[in-house]
Amino acid sequence: MKRPTSDHDYHQQHQCSRQWRPFLLCLGQELAERLGPDGARALMRRLGGAMSRERPLPALELLPDLEAAMNTLWSDMDWGWVELQDTGDALRIVHHCAPLDAAFGVSARAWSGALLEGAYEQWLKAAGAGERLRVRQMPGSSNSPDTTLVFVLTS
Amino acid sequence: MKRPTSDHDYHQQHQCSRQWRPFLLCLGQELAERLGPDGARALMRRLGGAMSRERPLPALELLPDLEAAMNTLWSDMDWGWVELQDTGDALRIVHHCAPLDAAFGVSARAWSGALLEGAYEQWLKAAGAGERLRVRQMPGSSNSPDTTLVFVLTS
Amino acid sequence: MKRPTSDHDYHQQHQCSRQWRPFLLCLGQELAERLGPDGARALMRRLGGAMSRERPLPALELLPDLEAAMNTLWSDMDWGWVELQDTGDALRIVHHCAPLDAAFGVSARAWSGALLEGAYEQWLKAAGAGERLRVRQMPGSSNSPDTTLVFVLTS
Amino acid sequence: MKRPTSDHDYHQQHQCSRQWRPFLLCLGQELAERLGPDGARALMRRLGGAMSRERPLPALELLPDLEAAMNTLWSDMDWGWVELQDTGDALRIVHHCAPLDAAFGVSARAWSGALLEGAYEQWLKAAGAGERLRVRQMPGSSNSPDTTLVFVLTS
Repeated sequence: MKRPTSDHDYHQQHQCSRQWRPFLLCLGQELAERLGPDGARALMRRLGGAMSRERPLPALELLPDLEAAMNTLWSDMDWGWVELQDTGDALRIVHHCAPLDAAFGVSARAWSGALLEGAYEQWLKAAGAGERLRVRQMPGSSNSPDTTLVFVLTS
Repeated sequence: MKRPTSDHDYHQQHQCSRQWRPFLLCLGQELAERLGPDGARALMRRLGGAMSRERPLPALELLPDLEAAMNTLWSDMDWGWVELQDTGDALRIVHHCAPLDAAFGVSARAWSGALLEGAYEQWLKAAGAGERLRVRQMPGSSNSPDTTLVFVLTS
Repeated sequence: MKRPTSDHDYHQQHQCSRQWRPFLLCLGQELAERLGPDGARALMRRLGGAMSRERPLPALELLPDLEAAMNTLWSDMDWGWVELQDTGDALRIVHHCAPLDAAFGVSARAWSGALLEGAYEQWLKAAGAGERLRVRQMPGSSNSPDTTLVFVLTS
Repeated sequence: MKRPTSDHDYHQQHQCSRQWRPFLLCLGQELAERLGPDGARALMRRLGGAMSRERPLPALELLPDLEAAMNTLWSDMDWGWVELQDTGDALRIVHHCAPLDAAFGVSARAWSGALLEGAYEQWLKAAGAGERLRVRQMPGSSNSPDTTLVFVLTS
């Protein structure tokens, strides 16, 4: 085996469960071909929302408590960890160590992050964010060399 | 936690990687709703074929060698194990301990097995089975109380 | 790969995490050689007690609640599942699907079950069983063809 | 859950299989108490050697080929990755992303690295390094903030 180029590279290769990696890679290629990036984003958004409905957070009001509850669920699934940052006029959601590149491949970055977009939007709505608010992935973040993804809750 | 009803029940609950179970469950519900069982079967068949192209078998001619090579790959992914049975006029493929119920739910049995159908067909064609042969899941097997799936290679 | 002889055989081979199987196998051989079966049993008993102190149960009084709390912890670790049976004059503890054979090998059965012995004794003492009670593994159970282990709480 | 302090912290917490983490933590505490750091180092060295005998490398002569063969085995177990560096007068072995801190705790660093020491020594002897050569962990490396471990093969 060629050695990894860095610890980050090693973890990215190993974070996705070996059981589903071939399936998820092929699923990603199929989705990209059949639906295109926009269609794949829309599907991932719906799936992310459905995942959050399957695994609801307890009722909490304070950001640090919400963040801790999210991190408990993400940690249990080995999906990385999140920081919720109140920037005064918006909520910034910084997600680290997502297994999305490991599962769907780097070429899926144009759409795979929408899974987290949908998941956070559903959790934040259930926590009382207004129905008209949307979680959006920050465009630059899909070109980043690492796997940190940044989302913003906006109206 | 309610205790499992049997060892089989325990293994069925635990065989699917915790990392992807919520995603795969939601994916299964989405596919069933949007595509119906026939559409979901067709998609799973394509994905199974793509998985086998991603993980080709070495060139082998004898059934026991093919079976052993398949079991090496399935074991590495924890997808169960297979028996290839030459019944004289057909090839019977008996797959045990698939993680499909654990991943997609028992309600997905009408279509989830097509993933293995596509995988076996692709492997057997690459091993020299004629292009006109098809692998078909035996109808009864989706009602079975366990997770054994039976397929037949026919013209 | 030689195919498994049964579903039970398959699960027994696959239930132990691939990360620690070589280490645990070698640890078991070292313990058996250096300490003998009695010494290995004594060490496993202490380790089982320490594990239960690390992962205490919530305070519960009814057997079904204790059983459910134990099963939640075992399930989270994929260590199988337990039935607590009040036989009138004793408490029978039936543990299914332990990963001990998969980890330490079948030849370790003379001592590996003591890990669960120590774990159950510690949990039951913390739950109010008298200090003089002991959990003992039933002798026959280590010859059983499957991985069910039976323990009894006695004075 | 408190959020991790960094991606490195996250991976360190999650790299050890959930199935064996409580057992390995308690084992480490027991070994440190009963054997002291020197005794624990000696035991880990023997276990590392035994692990390498269980999983021998194919016969190879060139360093890059040895390195690749080691990385295939480490990757399969999710034990990190290694660089073999010929410094002219010695062989430096740099092991990244070992799951030892995650398994035995940071307090075990005084002895846990001896597991890799024994593993590399056995592999290198089997590959033809002289019987009188020893693999030694570089002292400073156990204080490093990360999980990189450095070993040297010396006479």
